[in-house]
Amino acid sequence: MVGDLRIDLNADLGEAFGAWSMGEDAAMLAQVSSANIACGFHAGDPETMRTTTVSAARAGVAIGAHVAYRDLTGFGRRFVDAALEELTSDVYYQLCALDGMAVAAGERVRYVKPHGAFYHASHTHTPHATALVEALTLFAEVSGRQLPLLLAPGALAHDLAAERGFATFREVFADRSYNPDGTLVSRRSPGAVITEVPAVVEAMQRFVEEGTIIATDGTVLHMDAESICLHGDTPGAVAMAESVRAALSGAGAKIVSFA
Amino acid sequence: MVGDLRIDLNADLGEAFGAWSMGEDAAMLAQVSSANIACGFHAGDPETMRTTTVSAARAGVAIGAHVAYRDLTGFGRRFVDAALEELTSDVYYQLCALDGMAVAAGERVRYVKPHGAFYHASHTHTPHATALVEALTLFAEVSGRQLPLLLAPGALAHDLAAERGFATFREVFADRSYNPDGTLVSRRSPGAVITEVPAVVEAMQRFVEEGTIIATDGTVLHMDAESICLHGDTPGAVAMAESVRAALSGAGAKIVSFA
Amino acid sequence: MVGDLRIDLNADLGEAFGAWSMGEDAAMLAQVSSANIACGFHAGDPETMRTTTVSAARAGVAIGAHVAYRDLTGFGRRFVDAALEELTSDVYYQLCALDGMAVAAGERVRYVKPHGAFYHASHTHTPHATALVEALTLFAEVSGRQLPLLLAPGALAHDLAAERGFATFREVFADRSYNPDGTLVSRRSPGAVITEVPAVVEAMQRFVEEGTIIATDGTVLHMDAESICLHGDTPGAVAMAESVRAALSGAGAKIVSFA
Amino acid sequence: MVGDLRIDLNADLGEAFGAWSMGEDAAMLAQVSSANIACGFHAGDPETMRTTTVSAARAGVAIGAHVAYRDLTGFGRRFVDAALEELTSDVYYQLCALDGMAVAAGERVRYVKPHGAFYHASHTHTPHATALVEALTLFAEVSGRQLPLLLAPGALAHDLAAERGFATFREVFADRSYNPDGTLVSRRSPGAVITEVPAVVEAMQRFVEEGTIIATDGTVLHMDAESICLHGDTPGAVAMAESVRAALSGAGAKIVSFA
Repeated sequence: MVGDLRIDLNADLGEAFGAWSMGEDAAMLAQVSSANIACGFHAGDPETMRTTTVSAARAGVAIGAHVAYRDLTGFGRRFVDAALEELTSDVYYQLCALDGMAVAAGERVRYVKPHGAFYHASHTHTPHATALVEALTLFAEVSGRQLPLLLAPGALAHDLAAERGFATFREVFADRSYNPDGTLVSRRSPGAVITEVPAVVEAMQRFVEEGTIIATDGTVLHMDAESICLHGDTPGAVAMAESVRAALSGAGAKIVSFA
Repeated sequence: MVGDLRIDLNADLGEAFGAWSMGEDAAMLAQVSSANIACGFHAGDPETMRTTTVSAARAGVAIGAHVAYRDLTGFGRRFVDAALEELTSDVYYQLCALDGMAVAAGERVRYVKPHGAFYHASHTHTPHATALVEALTLFAEVSGRQLPLLLAPGALAHDLAAERGFATFREVFADRSYNPDGTLVSRRSPGAVITEVPAVVEAMQRFVEEGTIIATDGTVLHMDAESICLHGDTPGAVAMAESVRAALSGAGAKIVSFA
Repeated sequence: MVGDLRIDLNADLGEAFGAWSMGEDAAMLAQVSSANIACGFHAGDPETMRTTTVSAARAGVAIGAHVAYRDLTGFGRRFVDAALEELTSDVYYQLCALDGMAVAAGERVRYVKPHGAFYHASHTHTPHATALVEALTLFAEVSGRQLPLLLAPGALAHDLAAERGFATFREVFADRSYNPDGTLVSRRSPGAVITEVPAVVEAMQRFVEEGTIIATDGTVLHMDAESICLHGDTPGAVAMAESVRAALSGAGAKIVSFA
Repeated sequence: MVGDLRIDLNADLGEAFGAWSMGEDAAMLAQVSSANIACGFHAGDPETMRTTTVSAARAGVAIGAHVAYRDLTGFGRRFVDAALEELTSDVYYQLCALDGMAVAAGERVRYVKPHGAFYHASHTHTPHATALVEALTLFAEVSGRQLPLLLAPGALAHDLAAERGFATFREVFADRSYNPDGTLVSRRSPGAVITEVPAVVEAMQRFVEEGTIIATDGTVLHMDAESICLHGDTPGAVAMAESVRAALSGAGAKIVSFA
C-alpha cells in the first residue's frame, strides 16, 4: 500500500432474493470500487443479478462473482460438505451465469470471491479450495480469461491458484478486530466487530498509509492486501463506507479496483 | 420432409437431480440427433449438466437448452405466472449456464426448446412467449449467436422469434395422437399416447416420407416439421426410439440435427 | 359491525426467511388481533415460524396459518397451476407444521388465510378453492378442530367451506380502493393503494361504525366483514396500523380476533 | 436377540420428490416392519408423504420420521453446519408435518431416525445430536408422546436421549461390512457393501440367532440391536429383503417393529 496509495474497496451486493431485499446497493455502489455480486446460490435471483450487474457497470464498479454453497436457507453461511466434483460444477455454473449477466450489462466478471462458509473453507479446506481453483481453471480454459481470486492473506486457495498462474489479491476487513497472529477475532468474542466509525476510519487510514493493522493486544501487524472489505448489510453500513472512503481519499489514496 | 429425407430426432436429457435419476440418457444419446438438456430450473443440477453436455458432445448430438419455469417440485410441468422481466432473466440465466457447460465440453448450445408448462405457454401466452424471445435476443446481442427455437407448428413464440430474424424449427410427437385440427389429443383423453411400437413407427415413417400425420378420425394432416420428439422417460422409451430410428434410416432418411 | 363495534385487525407476519427479514413483526404484533403466519412455502423457515408463534402467543394475538403455493422465489405471489391433490397435501402439510409450532408456543392455529396468488385463486378457481377446503376438512377430521377461513366477501372457497360446516370470516383492506361493484381497484391502476393515513383512518372508521365503504365513484358499498387487513411490509405500515387502531378504539370499537 | 427371536426390519421409504421416484416402496413395504419416511427436507414432497404414510399404515408397517438436513440437492447426504436452534426447529417442523400425515392415515409417527449425514452426525456431533434430542423433547412436551430413537450402537444422541428418558433402539446394517472395532467399513474401501445375497442372509441369520456379527478379520462382534437396516434403493434391494426376511422367518424369528 505504502507509496502508490491505491486501494480497492469491496462489498457484497445483489443479495436480494425475490421479494426480500438486503442492504442498500445503490448507496454502496457509490462508495466501493469492487462489487461481490451474488450468483443465485446463497442469494441473488436472476432478475436481481441482471439489475445489479447493470447498476455496477453504470457506476464503474468492477463485477466480482460471489460464488457460494447452494444454501438459500442458510444464506451460504453454513458449511456444506459438497463433493469436489459437484462443488466445481456448482461454482462454474455460477461463474457462467453471472458472466452472462455481466456481458449483457456491457461488462465481464473481473474477479472471484467465495462467499460465507465457502470463503472460510477456501482458506483451509483442501477439497473445497481445490474445487474453487478447478472452476477458475475451467472458466479460463474455455473463455481465455484468468479471473483473479480475492481472499484473506494466507489462504490455501490462493496458493493453489498461484501455482496455476492465477493472480491473487488479498483483503482486510474494515470493521473487524485482529488477533496478534493476524487472524480475525472470532465473532463469538466480544469486540470482534468494530462499530465506532472513527476507530474504523483510523485503522484503515493507518493500513493504507503504513500497511499495518494494530491487533487487539497492540501488536503491529504488517498486512499485504490490495482491498478493504466493507460490510453493506449492517445498520450504518453506508455511513461507515462513506467515512472510510472520504478519509482514504483525503489522505491521497486512489480508490480503484484491483481487477 | 419429402425429397431430401432428412429428419431430426430430439429427446429430453439431463433430467436427473442430485440423487434422483430420470430416463436412460446413455441409451437415448445413441438414438437422437438433438438433446434438450435441462438447465437447473425444472431438473439438472450443475454436475448433471456438465456430464450430460460432455456425453452429448462425445455422441455428436446437438445440445439444446431445455429452459423451464423455476419449479423443481413440479418438474416444470405446472404453469407459473412469472412476470415478463423476471422470466426473461430466468431464461437468460439458464442459457448462459448451459452454454458455459457446453463450451466446457467443447461445444455450444445450438438451439432452445422450452420445457413442460413453459413449452405450452410459448405457443399461446403472449408475455411468456415474449420473455422467451427477449432472452434469445439478449443472448444473441451479447454472444453474436442467434439460437434457433424448436416448438410445435403454429407457436406464438415462433412468430415473435421470426419477426426478429431467428430461425424456427418445428416438431411432431412420435407417440401422441393428433386431433383433426392438428392439435394434440389431450393427455386426459383415452388414446392420447400411442404405446404400440409398430403404430408409432408406421406413423413416423409416413410423416418422413409424405409429410403427413393421420388424425384420430382419419383426416390426413400435412405437417411441416423438421424434428420428431421422442420421449425418454417412459418404460420402453429406448426400444421405441431404436425402432423409430431404424425404420427411418431403413427408409433412407438421414438422422441429423436441424441445429 | 354496527352495534357491537367489535372488529379484528389482521396482518401478515413471520415472512422472514433465513437471513432475510420482512416487515416489523414486533411492532405489528402490538397493533393487530390476528396474525397470518407464513408456513414455509412462500416465506417463514421453521425457526422463524417457531419464534413468530411464540411472539404472537405472548402478545395474545390469534395465530392464523398463512398457507401458500410452494414458491419462495416468487414469495407466493405467482399463480402456480398445482394439481388439486398435490395442493391439498401442500396445504395440509403447512397446517400441521404451523400447528405444531403453535402448540409448542402454548397455542393452536385458530384460522386459515391463503396467501398471495393462492388467496386470489381461493375466490374464483374451483380446483384450488376445493384443495383449500379439502385440507381444512382433513385437518378437522384428524384433529377435531374446524378452522375458520378468512377471505374477502364473495369468495368461492367460502361457499365450499360453508357447505361443509366451516365458519367463514371476511375482511376488508384498509389501504385499498374499491370499485363500485365491490371489487378491489387493480394494483395496476392509479389510486389502487391509499397511502394517506387520514384517508385510511376515516374509511375504516366509517366501515366499523356504518358497515360501509365508499367506492372510487362515491357509491356507498355495504360490506359485511369481521376483519380489517393491514399491510405490514410497506414503509409507514406500523404508523398506519397504530393510527387505525387508535381511531377505532377511540370510536369505542373493541379490537379482538374473530378466531 | 437370542431367546425371543424377535427382530425389526427397517428401510427408507417415501424418497420420491415430485416427478422423481426412488426405490420400490410397494415391494419393500411387504418385507419390512418399520418404514423410515422422508419428511420433505432431503426427499418426500407432501403428496408423497401422504401416500406413503397411507401405504405404510395399510401394510401394518410402523411409521418412522426420517428427519434430515434441508438439502434436496444433496439428498441429505452432505453435512450441513446448521446452528443448534435452527436444526431443532427444522427437525420439529418435519416431525409435526409427518405426524400430521400419519394421523390422516389413521396412524402416528412411532419413532425417529435421522437420515444421511444427519444420521452420522447424531452419533458424534454434540450440537446436532443435541438438536435432535431437543426436537424430540419439544414434541414429547406438546404431544405427550415420547418417540423412540433408532441409531447404531454407541450413538451420542442415544446417550442424550436416554438421559431424558427416551427409549433407544439400535440397528445393524444387513449389507455392510464391519471393522473389528464394530464400526462400519468405509464406503470408500473395497468390500464395504456386501452384494451377495447368501452372504447377507447368513450374516443376518447369525446375528438374530447369536447376536453376533463377524468382522472383516474374523473377529466375532457381539451386537446388541433390535433392528436390521435394509437398503431399498439399490438394484436387487427387493430380492435381498425378501431373502433376509424369509431366512429369518424360517429360523423362527418374528419380524415385528420395535416401535
